[in-house]
Amino acid sequence: MTDDVRRDQDPLVVFTPSGRRGHFPAGTPVLTAARQLGVDLDSVCGGRGICSKCQVTPSYGDFPKHGVSVGPDALSDWNAVEQRYQEKRGLKPGRRLGCQAVIRGDVVIDVPPESQVHRQVVRKAASERVIAMDPATRLYLVSVDAPDMHEPSGDLERLQAALEAQWGVKGARADLSLLGRLQGALRKGDWQVSVAVFDDHTPDPPRIIEIWPGLHEGGLFGLAIDLGSTTIAANLTDLDGGAVVASAGVMNPQIRFGEDLMSRVSYAMMNPGGAAEMTAAVRGALNDLAGAIAGEAGIDPALIVEAVLVCNPVMHHLALGIDPVELGQAPFALAMSGALALPAAQLELSAVNPRARVYILPCIAGHVGADAAAVALSEEPGKSDDLVLIVDVGTNAELLLGDRSRVLACSSPTGPAFEGAQISSGQRAAPGAIERVQIDPLTKAPRVQVIGCDLWSDDPGFAAATATTGITGICGSGIIEAVAEMRMAGLLDAGGLIGGPDQTGTPRCEPDGRTHAYLLHDGSAEGGPRITVTQGDIRAIQLAKSALYAGARLLMDEMGVDRVDRVVLAGAFGAHISPRHAMVLGMIPDAPLDKVTSAGNAAGTGARIALCNRAARAEIEATVHRITKVETAIEPRFQEHFVNANAIPHAVDGFPELSKLVTLPDVRFNTGGDREGRRRRRR
Amino acid sequence: MTDDVRRDQDPLVVFTPSGRRGHFPAGTPVLTAARQLGVDLDSVCGGRGICSKCQVTPSYGDFPKHGVSVGPDALSDWNAVEQRYQEKRGLKPGRRLGCQAVIRGDVVIDVPPESQVHRQVVRKAASERVIAMDPATRLYLVSVDAPDMHEPSGDLERLQAALEAQWGVKGARADLSLLGRLQGALRKGDWQVSVAVFDDHTPDPPRIIEIWPGLHEGGLFGLAIDLGSTTIAANLTDLDGGAVVASAGVMNPQIRFGEDLMSRVSYAMMNPGGAAEMTAAVRGALNDLAGAIAGEAGIDPALIVEAVLVCNPVMHHLALGIDPVELGQAPFALAMSGALALPAAQLELSAVNPRARVYILPCIAGHVGADAAAVALSEEPGKSDDLVLIVDVGTNAELLLGDRSRVLACSSPTGPAFEGAQISSGQRAAPGAIERVQIDPLTKAPRVQVIGCDLWSDDPGFAAATATTGITGICGSGIIEAVAEMRMAGLLDAGGLIGGPDQTGTPRCEPDGRTHAYLLHDGSAEGGPRITVTQGDIRAIQLAKSALYAGARLLMDEMGVDRVDRVVLAGAFGAHISPRHAMVLGMIPDAPLDKVTSAGNAAGTGARIALCNRAARAEIEATVHRITKVETAIEPRFQEHFVNANAIPHAVDGFPELSKLVTLPDVRFNTGGDREGRRRRRR
Repeated sequence: MTDDVRRDQDPLVVFTPSGRRGHFPAGTPVLTAARQLGVDLDSVCGGRGICSKCQVTPSYGDFPKHGVSVGPDALSDWNAVEQRYQEKRGLKPGRRLGCQAVIRGDVVIDVPPESQVHRQVVRKAASERVIAMDPATRLYLVSVDAPDMHEPSGDLERLQAALEAQWGVKGARADLSLLGRLQGALRKGDWQVSVAVFDDHTPDPPRIIEIWPGLHEGGLFGLAIDLGSTTIAANLTDLDGGAVVASAGVMNPQIRFGEDLMSRVSYAMMNPGGAAEMTAAVRGALNDLAGAIAGEAGIDPALIVEAVLVCNPVMHHLALGIDPVELGQAPFALAMSGALALPAAQLELSAVNPRARVYILPCIAGHVGADAAAVALSEEPGKSDDLVLIVDVGTNAELLLGDRSRVLACSSPTGPAFEGAQISSGQRAAPGAIERVQIDPLTKAPRVQVIGCDLWSDDPGFAAATATTGITGICGSGIIEAVAEMRMAGLLDAGGLIGGPDQTGTPRCEPDGRTHAYLLHDGSAEGGPRITVTQGDIRAIQLAKSALYAGARLLMDEMGVDRVDRVVLAGAFGAHISPRHAMVLGMIPDAPLDKVTSAGNAAGTGARIALCNRAARAEIEATVHRITKVETAIEPRFQEHFVNANAIPHAVDGFPELSKLVTLPDVRFNTGGDREGRRRRRR
Repeated sequence: MTDDVRRDQDPLVVFTPSGRRGHFPAGTPVLTAARQLGVDLDSVCGGRGICSKCQVTPSYGDFPKHGVSVGPDALSDWNAVEQRYQEKRGLKPGRRLGCQAVIRGDVVIDVPPESQVHRQVVRKAASERVIAMDPATRLYLVSVDAPDMHEPSGDLERLQAALEAQWGVKGARADLSLLGRLQGALRKGDWQVSVAVFDDHTPDPPRIIEIWPGLHEGGLFGLAIDLGSTTIAANLTDLDGGAVVASAGVMNPQIRFGEDLMSRVSYAMMNPGGAAEMTAAVRGALNDLAGAIAGEAGIDPALIVEAVLVCNPVMHHLALGIDPVELGQAPFALAMSGALALPAAQLELSAVNPRARVYILPCIAGHVGADAAAVALSEEPGKSDDLVLIVDVGTNAELLLGDRSRVLACSSPTGPAFEGAQISSGQRAAPGAIERVQIDPLTKAPRVQVIGCDLWSDDPGFAAATATTGITGICGSGIIEAVAEMRMAGLLDAGGLIGGPDQTGTPRCEPDGRTHAYLLHDGSAEGGPRITVTQGDIRAIQLAKSALYAGARLLMDEMGVDRVDRVVLAGAFGAHISPRHAMVLGMIPDAPLDKVTSAGNAAGTGARIALCNRAARAEIEATVHRITKVETAIEPRFQEHFVNANAIPHAVDGFPELSKLVTLPDVRFNTGGDREGRRRRRR
C-alpha cells in the first residue's frame, strides 16, 4: 500500500516494512512524517526526545525497488538529544530517534518491530498464534499547564485537558486514591508526568491508573490468571512488548473444602459462611501468587496494572464472592454470565497496583465457564475449516466441538485424577514428579522421565542429575502414560484390571490387597518412596477418562457426526499430555495421530490474549453468544456414553486410527479384585 | 395543551390538571391512556396493581369547560385488586387505581400531586422555591424471566433485560456486593423484585443500588449534607416525595486541628499524616451524622441510597482524602475542581447503603468551593434581573454578586466568630442560647430570646418556659444582634469601643481588665452563667464583619458598581440573621431594608436541589464555568477595604439607606482598652 502525496520537489520518504511513502518538506522530523502517513511508529513522550520508543533505522544507497537513491545527507546529523540518549542508555548501531532526525533528502526508513505500537508477539506454544499488542492500559507522557489563579481549574482538569490535546484520550477519570497523589507528582515532575491510562474501548470512560513524575521507565505489567479447581497459574506479561516475564503456579487452597467443584458447592450448601470461607481462601491465594510472581520478576507490584481472570463457573462465583449454590442444581443458573471489568480492589487483590483493573471473560453457561471462553478465544474453533474437538483437561474438563458453521460446548466432571490427585502416588507437576513413562513390552520393565531432567531413568547420569530432587511421585501426564503403557505392555486388560505376576510374567505386578499394583519405581533402598500404579489408580483414571470421552461423544451426537477431523488437547498440563497415550487410554475419540495436537494451557493463552489485546475482549464476548451449550448433567446419553467408555481404549466407536498405531495385547485377567469388580458392576 | 386523537366514537378521556385528552377504546386502563397521552402519572409496579402509585380521582357530571359529560358508568366498577388494596392500606375517598380502572365512557380524571412522577415540592424557606422531583435513584418493580437451561444467561443478565423491556433502563450494572444477593432475592420474590436504580443521566451506565424481593414499600432516602468548617448539617430527604423527614447537625470535629481553614491547612503542612487525621475525623463525623439522622427518622440506614455533599475547597479536599496544602498558598490550585460522582464507600461512608452514591458539587476556584456552587444553584444570581449580592455567612464566607449578564464570586476568611466561636460566652445554636437581643436606648437594659422559647426574657412566664434549658450562652445571630443593639443604644462607639459605666450611665458596662464588658444576662444567682459581651468579642465581630464587607466591596469594584439592588443573607444560620442588625453592624453594603432578605441555609438547599433533581447537577456544572472568580487573598484592595470597614457601621460608602432606618448615637469613648487599642493600631 502506498500513499503518494507529491508536493513539488520535496524529499521522498519511504517507510519499511509498511511501504508507505510520501513527500515532505526538508526539515520535517521522521516521527512527524510517519504520523502523517499513518506509519505504525511508537512514541510515549510525543516527540520530546525522552522516551526513545520511536527508534528507526535509515538506509543509505540505491533502492531500485523503491525507486529512490539515498545520499549520506538524507537525514540531519546526529544531534545533542541523541548523543545524550546514546551516552545514557545506548542506541543500537545505525539507529536514530525518529523525533530528532530531520528529513533533508530522499530516504528509506525502516521501523524495527520494537518501535511499532502494534508490534506482534508470537505465542510460544505449538500453534504459533500471533497476538497483536493493543493492551487496554497504556503509558503516556504529558505536559500539563501550570495552575493559574485567573483560570481556576483543578490540577486533574488540566491533566485531563493535556491528555486529550496531546494524546486524544478524552475524559479520563481518576480515583480518589490517585487524586491524593496527583498534585505532588505534577510538581515533582515540573508539570511533566507519565500516566498509565486504562481504556478498554467500552462506553466506560478511560481511567488514570497510575502517575509518575517525568518519564516512567519501569514498564507496565499485566497478570493472565488461569484459576483452576486444583491449580492456579499466572503469567506476568509486559504490556509494552507482550513478553511473559515470569510464570508461577500455586495449588488452589479451596482443595481443603472439596477436591471437585460439586464438593465445594456442597460445602457452601452445608456450612453457613462456607462460600465466604472459600472466597477468602482463593483471594488469598491470588494475592500470594501475584506477590510471588512480582518477586520472581523483580518488579514493584504496583506496576501490575491489569489482570485477566479465566475460570470455571463455580470458581468464577467463589472468586467474585457469590454463593455458588445455584450452580449445584438444575437449571444451573449463573448469578451473572457476562464479562466483567472491575477494580482489582473489589476482589481484594491487594498485591497489585491499588487501582489495577481486572477483566473476567464471560461464562458460556452454568457449567461452561470463562475458561471455556478463553479456550475458544485461543483456539478459535469457530474459525476452523475442519471439525475440531478441543478438550481442556482439568478437574472439570471443558469441551468445544465445531467449525465455521457451528460451535458446541459442554463441561464434564472428570475429577482431579488427571492432575495427580486421588492417585496413590500422585503429586502435582513439580521437579521430581514422573511425567513420562515407557514400559518394555518384553521385559515389562519401566523407564521414566522426571520433571526437571531430560534424561530417561536408564540413561547414564540420571541418578546424578536427579540427586537433588529424587523421584517423589507421579504427576497427571505421568499417570496417563503409565496406564497406557501398562495396557500396551499387556499388564492391564481392556476392562482395566492389572494382571498378577503369574499372568503377566513380572514380579512388578505385585499383590496389593485383593488386587495387584504395578511397581513403577522403587526408591526405598535410598530412603525414597515406592511408586506403584494401583488398581484404585486405574479405576480413578478410568472414571476421569470416561467422563471426558462421554462429554466429547455427547457433543458429537449433538453435531450429528461419528468422527472429528482433529483433536486439540489443552489444559494447565495440556502441553505435556502425549497424544498417543491419550488415544490408547481412550480419553478422546479415534483420530489420526497427526491430527491430535497439544495446545498447552489454552485457557491461560486466552487470558493472555485478552490481556494484550482489548479488541479480543469484545470478540470473545460476541463469540460466546454464538456457542451452543450442551448440558451433560441432565442428559441420559451422557451416562450411557460414560458407562460404555470404561474400557481401555474405549470400545464405543471402534478405533481404526488407533489400530494403525498400535496393536494392543488381547489379554484378559481375572483376579480377586476382578471378581470384586464384576460383582460391583453387576449391581 | 391538548392532544386530541379522535378515533371513531371511542370514549373521550380528559386528564387534569394537564388538560391532555384523547379518545380510547372502551376497556383501556386509565394508566395506559395516561401513558399514551404523556400524562405524568406515576407507577412503580408497571400496572400490576400493587404499588398504588397511580391513584387517580375520576370526576362525574357535566364539564362544559372540557365539553364533556361524565356518566356514572364512565369507568369500570371497583375491582378485587382495588378492594384488597383498600382493605390492606386504604384509599382516599373517590380514588381509583389507574391500572385497574378501565375506561367505559367519556371521563374526566384528575391526577393528584402525589401521583405525579415529577411532583413538585415547595421549599420551606422564605423564597418559596419549587424543586421538581427527578431524583437520580428510582425504584422499579420488575418481573424477571426464570432461568432456562437451554438459554443459559445469568440472573443479572435477565434482570437487566427485564429492566430494559419493562422500564427502558438500559445496561444497568450491579456491584459484586449486590451480585452476591441477587439470586436469593429473585427466588424469594418468585422472580418479581424491586430494584433501586441510580442513573444520573451522565455517560456512566445506570447502577443497581439495592434489590428487594417483591414490592419494596420502605421508601428511598437521600442525605443533603452541608459540610462546613465549624458545623456539619444534613437533611434526610424522601426521594419519592421530596420531603425532609429528619434534620441533624454536629460540630465538625476538625475544630480540634484548627478553628479556621488556614489553621487546618497549616496543621496538614506541619504534621506528617495531619491531613489523613483530619480526613478520618470528618469521615467519622459524617458517619455519626448519617447514623443519627436515620435513627431520628426511624429508617434502616440501608435505605439511604444517595448523598449530596457541599463544602468549601479545604473541606472538599479533606473529605476526599487529599492533602489541602496547595490551597494554602498561591496560586491556590485545587487537586480537582469538577463535580464528582462516586460510591459512598470511597468516602468510607458506611452508615448508609453500602452501594450508595455520593455527588459532590463542583468547586468554583481554590477558595470558592462547592458550597458557593450550591448557593448559586439555590439562589440563581445568574437568573436575577437586578443586581444581587448573596452572602453565605460561615467560618469562611462565600459571596456571589451578579445578574443575568455576569456573576462574580469570592470567599472571605471571616473566621468562626459569626458561629459563636471565639466569643467569650459564645456557643453553637442550641436550646438555651441567646439568639435575639434588644437593648432599651434609655435604660440600657437588655431583653433576650433564647432558642427553644418564643417569649422575651421580660415576658411573663419566660423563666418557667426556659427552666429546663436555662440561658447558657450566645449564638451567632445573638452576638450580631447584641453588638448592633449596643451600638444603637450608645454603649459602643463607631470605632468599636465599649463605653465605661460613667460614659454610658449604666453599671451593666462593667470594667473588664483595662476595657469594659456589657452584662447581657446574669444567671449567677441561680447558679447559671454571667453572660457578657466583652471588648474582645467586639473585636472578633469587627474582624469578621470587616472581612465579609471587604469581600462584598471587592466584588462591587470588579463589577464597577457602588451599590447593589438587593442582598441575600445565607448560611447555616442565615435564616436567623436579622437584616436590620446586619446593616447596623456593617456586615453588608448599604441597601433598602426591604431588599435585604434571609435565604436560610442556601448551600444546604442547593445540596437538596441536586439530590432531588439530577438535571440540576448538569445545570450547576455548566453554571460554575460562567462564574468569574475573584481572589481575595492576593488582592491589595481587599486589605484596604478590610481596614476601612472596621467601623460600626462601616464608613466606606456612606449609608443613606441605613440612615433612613436608624439614627446612630454620635458617641466616642476613650478607655484604657481604647488607648491600648490605638497603640496597637499605630504599630
